[in-house]
Amino acid sequence: MESIWQKRKGQLAAYLKENGIDIAFITSSTNVYYFTGFYCNPHERFLALALDARTGEETLYMPLLDLSGAEPFGGNGKLVPISDTENAYEVLKQHTASGVTVAGIEKEAVSIAKAERLQEALGGARFVDLEDFILSLRTNKSEEEISKVQDAVIMVEKVVAHAASHVKLGMTELELTAEIEYQMRKLGADRPAFESIVLTGARSALPHGTPGYETIKHGDFVLIDIGVQAGGYCSDITRTFVMGEASKEQRAIYDTVLAANIAGIAASKAGVTLASVDKAARDVIEQKGFGPLFTHRLGHGFGMDVHEQPSVSGQNQSIIEPGLLFTIEPGIYDPVIGGVRIEDDVYIQADGSVRVLTSYPKELILLGN
Amino acid sequence: MESIWQKRKGQLAAYLKENGIDIAFITSSTNVYYFTGFYCNPHERFLALALDARTGEETLYMPLLDLSGAEPFGGNGKLVPISDTENAYEVLKQHTASGVTVAGIEKEAVSIAKAERLQEALGGARFVDLEDFILSLRTNKSEEEISKVQDAVIMVEKVVAHAASHVKLGMTELELTAEIEYQMRKLGADRPAFESIVLTGARSALPHGTPGYETIKHGDFVLIDIGVQAGGYCSDITRTFVMGEASKEQRAIYDTVLAANIAGIAASKAGVTLASVDKAARDVIEQKGFGPLFTHRLGHGFGMDVHEQPSVSGQNQSIIEPGLLFTIEPGIYDPVIGGVRIEDDVYIQADGSVRVLTSYPKELILLGN
Repeated sequence: MESIWQKRKGQLAAYLKENGIDIAFITSSTNVYYFTGFYCNPHERFLALALDARTGEETLYMPLLDLSGAEPFGGNGKLVPISDTENAYEVLKQHTASGVTVAGIEKEAVSIAKAERLQEALGGARFVDLEDFILSLRTNKSEEEISKVQDAVIMVEKVVAHAASHVKLGMTELELTAEIEYQMRKLGADRPAFESIVLTGARSALPHGTPGYETIKHGDFVLIDIGVQAGGYCSDITRTFVMGEASKEQRAIYDTVLAANIAGIAASKAGVTLASVDKAARDVIEQKGFGPLFTHRLGHGFGMDVHEQPSVSGQNQSIIEPGLLFTIEPGIYDPVIGGVRIEDDVYIQADGSVRVLTSYPKELILLGN
Repeated sequence: MESIWQKRKGQLAAYLKENGIDIAFITSSTNVYYFTGFYCNPHERFLALALDARTGEETLYMPLLDLSGAEPFGGNGKLVPISDTENAYEVLKQHTASGVTVAGIEKEAVSIAKAERLQEALGGARFVDLEDFILSLRTNKSEEEISKVQDAVIMVEKVVAHAASHVKLGMTELELTAEIEYQMRKLGADRPAFESIVLTGARSALPHGTPGYETIKHGDFVLIDIGVQAGGYCSDITRTFVMGEASKEQRAIYDTVLAANIAGIAASKAGVTLASVDKAARDVIEQKGFGPLFTHRLGHGFGMDVHEQPSVSGQNQSIIEPGLLFTIEPGIYDPVIGGVRIEDDVYIQADGSVRVLTSYPKELILLGN
């Protein structure tokens, strides 16, 4: 049976042929993983999957340091380890059949400096962008991929549960973050999917705040926005709690965000625009008069990366299709009372309906009681 | 008194004028931090410091989400928050005085896609590279910067000590990694400086291996390569231990790596080539017949990023100057017995002599005794 890696490389090869592209050089770690199953962070070293549409040849260039990890992924291709004493572009030149006139690269991932060196090695080939094509492959997620995302969601929800039951008055945001990331590791996560956000009190109104030395006090909002990467895929969830007892104002904000979250999920289905999903949630918040305090788009796609296509924003008139995976995360950020965000992960199934992957409770939970 | 940020922006402005560059767009998070003190990971959003050499105007473009964190860093400049519903390049166009013919960018950091959008916004300006100039500023570290690195070293050495005293037979690499990263957080690290490496037994011979489910057994090498980022700067240290009792073969490898580490440090001083430092350490390993098992360069520069200039390799004929900060990390990787690496952080002081920032013991330590 054809492996998913073979299938994906086959899709790429077909695209190259249809578009008159001689050869593709895939250099982002995530895309190399997507096409080969081999993950490697090369730092400033050279990593590339070359797929030559003219000869059908596959070549995986990688740091010599990472060779042992790469060996299972050679498949029918050639593995070319590059040591620290070699010039990667010289090596690439030697292994590439001459006469490349059009080369496909990832224009979002390749720096100008890298492109200049690559162009020199290829003797002046013209570059065309593969980014949109690869994104379109990656954006359309299979059930196999979703089952990995589901595993990452289950893992992070255990971490949220652990955090909720271990919060104590007087704990700092950083202490709770340490506890959270320790649990991620213990449960087998490869890494946090992004920098964990734990914010308390008025600081919870900083949508991109980072955990600090503030202590958790009675009556504080405690906002936890975390994800894990496991098996190559990410999860991303936010829950907001209140420590001890919630005020009327806190409840009003919370209930509005929750209603917006539910409205956003209800609007998520194939055939409508992403903008309409954003609007469904935003309308709820605007109707309650909190519109100016919802300062970001409703959500974002994710998968192997924590931020992928599509953007769930009021500007995105693209139509939702089956296979999309994205977050629904409305928020209200009051600089005095604090912020609430409730974030779920949703998948648009083959029949066009939505499947919610997150299942951690969403009603307001009072901690430490 | 002029702040370090003002000083650095002044150096950049002078370089722009000298080189006929109208305006600089600094877009890498680390370089924006270097010039402003404001750190922000914009994900796919837009972050840039624009320094207009024609008008002297500074403009910091950032995601609206991150505005509250940016406000202290405005200085004399203009803060331009960009919301998710705006086109960043349109905003940039509005705020940039027209007539830009030469724009400076970081060619290693700017993707082709970004460069194309920027070029369109500027009406077709020519790009010149600022990377080398900025790197030369960043590579020459001040005592103020080194004191932050020293803090990060002290922090990570506490973590190594904690790990060494908490290792138990049967613990998995991942469990020990979880313990390590928990300690980093508890001590106040912003994040691990890179993906923590904890490898045991023959797996310690994988120079870029990642922690897994292998358990630590009697007689195993336990290799710990970790760093923290704190206060904007990194540390990076490797120590290799043996669990219980070491064999003669393990001791032979260990002693050779230690002698190479010491030789590399002894050779580190201003006025000699980086290649000669690599050679001093490599000679020791080759003389003992382990040459083929030392598969990487001796070290690398670091600072705000964990990998910076200079490369301490046999190919680098650059002369060492005061202000350089780099690692000395020889290793021998035997696929059966396992690997040993001993890594220290060194700084070349104003008088040309070396200061070793790491002080964790280097003689072979047997764990669990």
